[in-house]
Amino acid sequence: MNASLSLKQNDGNYFDDFKIGQVLQHGVPRTITESDATLYLALTGNRFALNCALTVAEQCGFSSMPLDNFLVFHIAFGKTVNDISLNAVANLGYAEVRFSRPCYAGDTLTVTSEVIGLKLNSSGKNGVVYVHSKALNQNSETVVSWKRWVMVNAKTDGLKNTQQPQIPQLLSSVSDEIPAIPSAIDCSSWQNYLSDSQDRLENFAVGDKIVHRDGITINHSEHSMATRLYQNNARVHFDGAFMQDSANGQRLVYGGHIISICRALSYNGLGNGLWVSSINGGSHTNPSFAGDTIYSQSEILEVKTIEGREDLGLLRIRQIGTKNIAPETIAQVSEVKNNRTTYHPSVVLDLDFNLVMLR
Amino acid sequence: MNASLSLKQNDGNYFDDFKIGQVLQHGVPRTITESDATLYLALTGNRFALNCALTVAEQCGFSSMPLDNFLVFHIAFGKTVNDISLNAVANLGYAEVRFSRPCYAGDTLTVTSEVIGLKLNSSGKNGVVYVHSKALNQNSETVVSWKRWVMVNAKTDGLKNTQQPQIPQLLSSVSDEIPAIPSAIDCSSWQNYLSDSQDRLENFAVGDKIVHRDGITINHSEHSMATRLYQNNARVHFDGAFMQDSANGQRLVYGGHIISICRALSYNGLGNGLWVSSINGGSHTNPSFAGDTIYSQSEILEVKTIEGREDLGLLRIRQIGTKNIAPETIAQVSEVKNNRTTYHPSVVLDLDFNLVMLR
Amino acid sequence: MNASLSLKQNDGNYFDDFKIGQVLQHGVPRTITESDATLYLALTGNRFALNCALTVAEQCGFSSMPLDNFLVFHIAFGKTVNDISLNAVANLGYAEVRFSRPCYAGDTLTVTSEVIGLKLNSSGKNGVVYVHSKALNQNSETVVSWKRWVMVNAKTDGLKNTQQPQIPQLLSSVSDEIPAIPSAIDCSSWQNYLSDSQDRLENFAVGDKIVHRDGITINHSEHSMATRLYQNNARVHFDGAFMQDSANGQRLVYGGHIISICRALSYNGLGNGLWVSSINGGSHTNPSFAGDTIYSQSEILEVKTIEGREDLGLLRIRQIGTKNIAPETIAQVSEVKNNRTTYHPSVVLDLDFNLVMLR
Repeated sequence: MNASLSLKQNDGNYFDDFKIGQVLQHGVPRTITESDATLYLALTGNRFALNCALTVAEQCGFSSMPLDNFLVFHIAFGKTVNDISLNAVANLGYAEVRFSRPCYAGDTLTVTSEVIGLKLNSSGKNGVVYVHSKALNQNSETVVSWKRWVMVNAKTDGLKNTQQPQIPQLLSSVSDEIPAIPSAIDCSSWQNYLSDSQDRLENFAVGDKIVHRDGITINHSEHSMATRLYQNNARVHFDGAFMQDSANGQRLVYGGHIISICRALSYNGLGNGLWVSSINGGSHTNPSFAGDTIYSQSEILEVKTIEGREDLGLLRIRQIGTKNIAPETIAQVSEVKNNRTTYHPSVVLDLDFNLVMLR
Repeated sequence: MNASLSLKQNDGNYFDDFKIGQVLQHGVPRTITESDATLYLALTGNRFALNCALTVAEQCGFSSMPLDNFLVFHIAFGKTVNDISLNAVANLGYAEVRFSRPCYAGDTLTVTSEVIGLKLNSSGKNGVVYVHSKALNQNSETVVSWKRWVMVNAKTDGLKNTQQPQIPQLLSSVSDEIPAIPSAIDCSSWQNYLSDSQDRLENFAVGDKIVHRDGITINHSEHSMATRLYQNNARVHFDGAFMQDSANGQRLVYGGHIISICRALSYNGLGNGLWVSSINGGSHTNPSFAGDTIYSQSEILEVKTIEGREDLGLLRIRQIGTKNIAPETIAQVSEVKNNRTTYHPSVVLDLDFNLVMLR
Repeated sequence: MNASLSLKQNDGNYFDDFKIGQVLQHGVPRTITESDATLYLALTGNRFALNCALTVAEQCGFSSMPLDNFLVFHIAFGKTVNDISLNAVANLGYAEVRFSRPCYAGDTLTVTSEVIGLKLNSSGKNGVVYVHSKALNQNSETVVSWKRWVMVNAKTDGLKNTQQPQIPQLLSSVSDEIPAIPSAIDCSSWQNYLSDSQDRLENFAVGDKIVHRDGITINHSEHSMATRLYQNNARVHFDGAFMQDSANGQRLVYGGHIISICRALSYNGLGNGLWVSSINGGSHTNPSFAGDTIYSQSEILEVKTIEGREDLGLLRIRQIGTKNIAPETIAQVSEVKNNRTTYHPSVVLDLDFNLVMLR
């Protein structure tokens, strides 16, 4: 080690660095381009017409093709990694993800996080940090906001509890909230061929399970490129030499890439599910690696009309992502043992979200 | 298998589902972006100046950089997979591929196919479906059209011949058709350095074989990204777990990716071949896999002037693509046995097309 | 080998083909798109705000987001390969790389090279060619220029010295030149959060070494796509079958890709290093291959203010790139033996450049 070595790098925040009410303004504002949308097609296999056909988007009253909301989320989320989770032991969960307005190519997102909860673990080695993050566009309008909790290492080993733990109230679901659909949006002239599907809101019932037939094998370059596109710099996704000594012996695929692949796979069956309006919660239940083939299945949890809209309704969906075997071949995706949900080792995603669906 | 499982997915059409005269309107209209053109450079190695230099394109009278016609074809073709070939046993061939007008970034393509022929095989297990497909832009102008025949499984096992087989007349070549070159296009001021080549129409003679020196090794992410960019969802290209049990034990590279790589490789030797105006026919003679290195060779079949044009002529070309060894090292690319053309196992492409060439 | 085989391909220039004062106009002018910039984020991990946030770029007085200068260099450099280094034995070095003005999406670059030096080696088998290359935009303004020397094979075996060797004077550093910063550029309102860094010019001292914490494992598709994006057609990067018989037994990663990755890694520590204004020189000291993990370290060689500017200064930096182990763990990066610098086998890059730094 060189004696004159100067460590000017940003080393990320530790548990000790966070304070309740603190607002972190995250680095690298990001202008989203048409190319992000096109690359997203190439990286995930997305085929939803609103995201790739200008004629369709304009006919529905959008000013241009809206970006897939998961793409928007990944870019916004990526900004927070450097300040929030560079020293994370585990990403524990997220809730109340609300997509407030469409995001278009040309929009620039800036992201802030407010610390809304802190709970030091009894070991004093780490603790849970709760943040409320918001991505604003260039007009200071909120595009997406979410709450998230992460277990973060303490800088001071054996940190003492000087403050009372503060744990925020988090909604287990936001499916009761009516998504903010601008009045200019009108999808009543949609034709079935646009989405390769004849199934609209009325064709779905609570308890239906939809098998999405396709599978996608993940290659190293794709998850790496996607995660870099989101400017998410978590080491576990990129540094193969470092990860050789980790428990899994290899780089991890960013969980958001799995979400996007499952959304893309769901086109075959949920083609009329125009956009995701909010996420109630989700778990990345097992890690994925390059070489894994991802499959997906959707279960309908709620079917809702939206007051004043004849064209659009809401489906609440539980989407299961699996690797290397299809979800429908797994007898029990998850089971509750000792108050803890344990998952089949092939299940990589359990996501609960609300989807704006054609009627 | 879950008892309440509901299969809402689009399962594709079977031989029984097709009727002569039926018109299928394919899903997911697609706006082509500048990013498709740029990604295409990165994925294939294309270097033709008209496709990547705005100054050159405008100087020749184009309103912007036209997209490489193979890129346009792949995107248009991709739309048809879901309805035509999801249950295909084999893609048997295509003919009469006509590029009617330039396609530019910003154009939105919508694709339809008319069923023009049906022939049930004697086994009753499958049959050949002939379609005539057309991609229209947002102004309802035809950009590219083609005929194609595919062997498709029957839904009903042992389907009976209730109809007379109908086999359409297909032209073996469209090289006699003069491509529709707008009068605004004028390439007479082209300079050799723009294309790294001094060889123009006059320098080529029937029987010439041009060895394209370069080779490109295909990586998994590239063929996967290209095929997803074209929104072609044929399972054989993406689902590695499924393909493990197939004859080849692995994912197949989309044949269109091979065509694009061969076109890109041909820059070195055919740099003044400005654009492909039509395809007479072609065969993907052996499968390609990730890790294969592709080489290419062009044979001049016809050399033609175009009436009224001093700047441009036509070359009819037979392009051979090989894997892992160069075409010129193969003693016999193909031979006819029992009325059937059999190919050397290293030959992956035999394409017959017409190229607009500088004079 | 087919008897009628006609070799119309461009075979590149040999040592015998170059003459002092000769100007080569390189092929394939290239319009740089917004998508080049976005793909560059995905391929390299670049996070510098000026290159990806329109709001930030405009606030600093740029008319749009300037492209990363290394991206510009790679595209410009790629154009010269076909004429200069297709028959190269070795790329020996470059000097006096000057970025004269920002390059924006929409600009079209055309590149020329003038032969400024020639020295036949005593064997007569090859010799060193020195060129001065310039990339002009569509308004004939110089965007980037550089000098480079390459050892090129002779066509004639045992070529005789008929001319005196001419070796041009090359500056060992251009760090004394004040970069041409347009007066419209004003970065005085920059806020630290934009770049995840609080370290500005004043915080750096000569001799400081900055460890950039992150590492990036290179995958085949990424270096292949990047190099094709730059339309650099050097065989060693793409033709895996050909490279199997080479000393390394595999494809080489384009050295420019390593430079770009090191620049991207340096964000963590040099986040306020807004753009590279010139390169004094550099060596690709060992080859890199797919699978290698790249790390980087920067040493401050000079710290300078710029007359008349309160917002920006200059850092001269020596950037070391290593593979598979971090630079700070190497006791001696390089040592001089018999007047020759030899490098530790893990060191892949030794780059000396000037960085415009926030004050």
